[in-house]
Amino acid sequence: MSNKENKKEESELMEKIVSLCKRRGFIFPGSEIYGGFAGTWDYGHFGNEILNNIKNSWWEKFVSNREDMYGIRAAILMRQEVWQATGHAEHFADPMVECEKCQHRFRIDQIEDKNNCADCGGKLGEARQFNMMFQTKVGASEDSSAISYLRPETAQGIFVNFKNIVDTHHPKIPFGIAQIGKAFRNEITPRDFIFRSREFEQMEIEYFVRENNWENAFNELKNEMHLWMSSVGIDMNKVHELEVVSEDLAHYSKRTVDFEFDYPFGRKELFGLAYRGDFDLKIHKLEYVDEENSEKITPHVIEPSFGVERALLAILLSAYTEDEMGGEVRIYLKLRPQIAPVLCAVSPLLKNKPELVSKSREVFSMLKKEFGRVAWDDNGNIGKRYRRQDEIGTPWCIVIDFDTLGENPELLDTVTIRDRDTGNQERIKISELISYIKNKLN
Amino acid sequence: MSNKENKKEESELMEKIVSLCKRRGFIFPGSEIYGGFAGTWDYGHFGNEILNNIKNSWWEKFVSNREDMYGIRAAILMRQEVWQATGHAEHFADPMVECEKCQHRFRIDQIEDKNNCADCGGKLGEARQFNMMFQTKVGASEDSSAISYLRPETAQGIFVNFKNIVDTHHPKIPFGIAQIGKAFRNEITPRDFIFRSREFEQMEIEYFVRENNWENAFNELKNEMHLWMSSVGIDMNKVHELEVVSEDLAHYSKRTVDFEFDYPFGRKELFGLAYRGDFDLKIHKLEYVDEENSEKITPHVIEPSFGVERALLAILLSAYTEDEMGGEVRIYLKLRPQIAPVLCAVSPLLKNKPELVSKSREVFSMLKKEFGRVAWDDNGNIGKRYRRQDEIGTPWCIVIDFDTLGENPELLDTVTIRDRDTGNQERIKISELISYIKNKLN
Repeated sequence: MSNKENKKEESELMEKIVSLCKRRGFIFPGSEIYGGFAGTWDYGHFGNEILNNIKNSWWEKFVSNREDMYGIRAAILMRQEVWQATGHAEHFADPMVECEKCQHRFRIDQIEDKNNCADCGGKLGEARQFNMMFQTKVGASEDSSAISYLRPETAQGIFVNFKNIVDTHHPKIPFGIAQIGKAFRNEITPRDFIFRSREFEQMEIEYFVRENNWENAFNELKNEMHLWMSSVGIDMNKVHELEVVSEDLAHYSKRTVDFEFDYPFGRKELFGLAYRGDFDLKIHKLEYVDEENSEKITPHVIEPSFGVERALLAILLSAYTEDEMGGEVRIYLKLRPQIAPVLCAVSPLLKNKPELVSKSREVFSMLKKEFGRVAWDDNGNIGKRYRRQDEIGTPWCIVIDFDTLGENPELLDTVTIRDRDTGNQERIKISELISYIKNKLN
Repeated sequence: MSNKENKKEESELMEKIVSLCKRRGFIFPGSEIYGGFAGTWDYGHFGNEILNNIKNSWWEKFVSNREDMYGIRAAILMRQEVWQATGHAEHFADPMVECEKCQHRFRIDQIEDKNNCADCGGKLGEARQFNMMFQTKVGASEDSSAISYLRPETAQGIFVNFKNIVDTHHPKIPFGIAQIGKAFRNEITPRDFIFRSREFEQMEIEYFVRENNWENAFNELKNEMHLWMSSVGIDMNKVHELEVVSEDLAHYSKRTVDFEFDYPFGRKELFGLAYRGDFDLKIHKLEYVDEENSEKITPHVIEPSFGVERALLAILLSAYTEDEMGGEVRIYLKLRPQIAPVLCAVSPLLKNKPELVSKSREVFSMLKKEFGRVAWDDNGNIGKRYRRQDEIGTPWCIVIDFDTLGENPELLDTVTIRDRDTGNQERIKISELISYIKNKLN
């Protein structure tokens, strides 16, 4: 395939994903009924379920299952002094150029022609710095109200709570503090669907180590990041570790690995892992006292950083599949069962037969009580239902038919269960459904 | 007890809760190491765990366990047109007065002396309106950047997605859309710990009904709200339904019930349930078409609204208990097991006996794998550990002692399990621990 064809196919894939996300109620443009609001996205029922599944899976692996992690929830609004100390207030900026004719602005690293405006052909002016933090004012009095910013990262909410965690939990080094929460950046050109948006959610850890132990911790966390990505269904063939070369490293960092993903719009950042030295604790004037020998140190920091929406995008891109089934093109999302918004769907073969419906309701209730994420689907014929559930990524569809009711006495109290990926159906006993699904989940 | 004594005791209770929350790592002032930031709070490891347990319990009851609810996650930043349509941009304001001498401002409904400044004694000026929405600017170009607001409620994120949900899920009326998420209000006087803060989290439902069915839905949801409050451990003796009288109702509402709680600082709002008529869908120009008969209607809305932090505060106030144990005052949080940040703690009787520690680790790993929220606690003597776990609200403490190892052969592989509320200890087999706790959970 030529490069051009490849590019076309990739851009088509992106369109297909966006379209499926809208059609099936995963993701909508923010404020859509008022014309949309660039860089914001609303997540519908299924999209929100997947987001929750991603966050729960991350929290379980990196917080609940470990003994060295403390989870917190810091406020989005912080004192501006936090961002002055970190340098964000002064330096968290993108270089921008403005067209002298139409006044449109562009991020200089995102335009090919640095001289002329892509919109009107006018001359572009000098590059200037544009701070990406959203500013607001907090407080009642005009004179005493304080400038504040919507945090551009969750990380600083962790650092400002370092002392709180140390004072209340007395953790031994190494230990980490984790947070999931919203962050905001006034991107000049939000783009590529949910890849670069102005409002997004992060899952971050600051892991505190002794300086001489940083490489061990770095490698351990890098490995855990790999395992997690793989466990949620990100195609690891599309994930690449980019060692940030030393001249590009922040001055305090000895090593940073960007995990990049082959998106249809190019190989770009997915997650990051940075060794930040003692920079952060130093700027906030924070220390740690080893309670065993009263030694006072400034721990060094390893920072694994994940974007929730980028995880979702990589998962959707990895899961999107087209094949041929019954002579037609079939679209399905090959989502891992723990990530899929619906674990299984239950249907009566015909919705106008009360005896089928009532048996189906029994099966549905049993499964819903056990698994929660179970859908009732009696809309349209069976073929239509399968296609809909395939697009949602539902791993199993269960159908109650006349054999379930005993039309063939040997098949009494059995149902068909269809596998999303193969389209194959098995017949199993209702009493074995829960253990069948549980086995598949493990 | 006199009224005055009662008041003192109540204010002491509040101080005790705030102190426990800080001491045990539940809740800290926001940006504390930079002097704090009024109206913002950071939640430590245990506080965050309780918040998650509250939200999960709510989501399970009101979304996952129902078939008529759709959960969403809308953006915090929305187009300003949304808030113009709702009237928030113009009217979401508190009347304020400013001191002519020191320029301090006060909410007029929160000061007793409407003439003179409580801070300097100066003369107070005329009352003026002060909009409580935080404003920010979104976009890159000075000229094209749009004013936006941090949403002051999650409800409007639901309404603007009404059409999305209808178009993708084709729900039959009645149905609801639910959301959990942050909201922000620039309160003039944030106060009473986490009761009135500038950044908070809401759990809201907009439930869409036919007009003639509103009372049924209202009563059903009111009942479900009661059941949920009770299930998470809110003391229902302190909860009161306040029927908002008709002259205080919004013009579109036929009925609103405020659920009030007896906080130490007075009887104030906890949650709310409002019948909002067709006001919201009308202002956003939204309709619903019944697919069976093509009838076009504007559904009416019932809105149950919960504050996550108010739920937490009411739960903590309901759970805080002092009694006498072993001749000393004991403090404990009588949290429901599904809400407690730690379900059970596992300890070796002595931390310097490797055989006790290794057996304890086995028991710990088994329980952690099963329940997640399990703590390892070998810090200090057993009495100290019990007191710490009591204050955290841990329902069960499990200790591995020499009898566990077979010092008394009859007690081999048994442990002590201590009940938080009674302080009583039982001896049970390790192999029965999981089912013992599971039984208590149900």
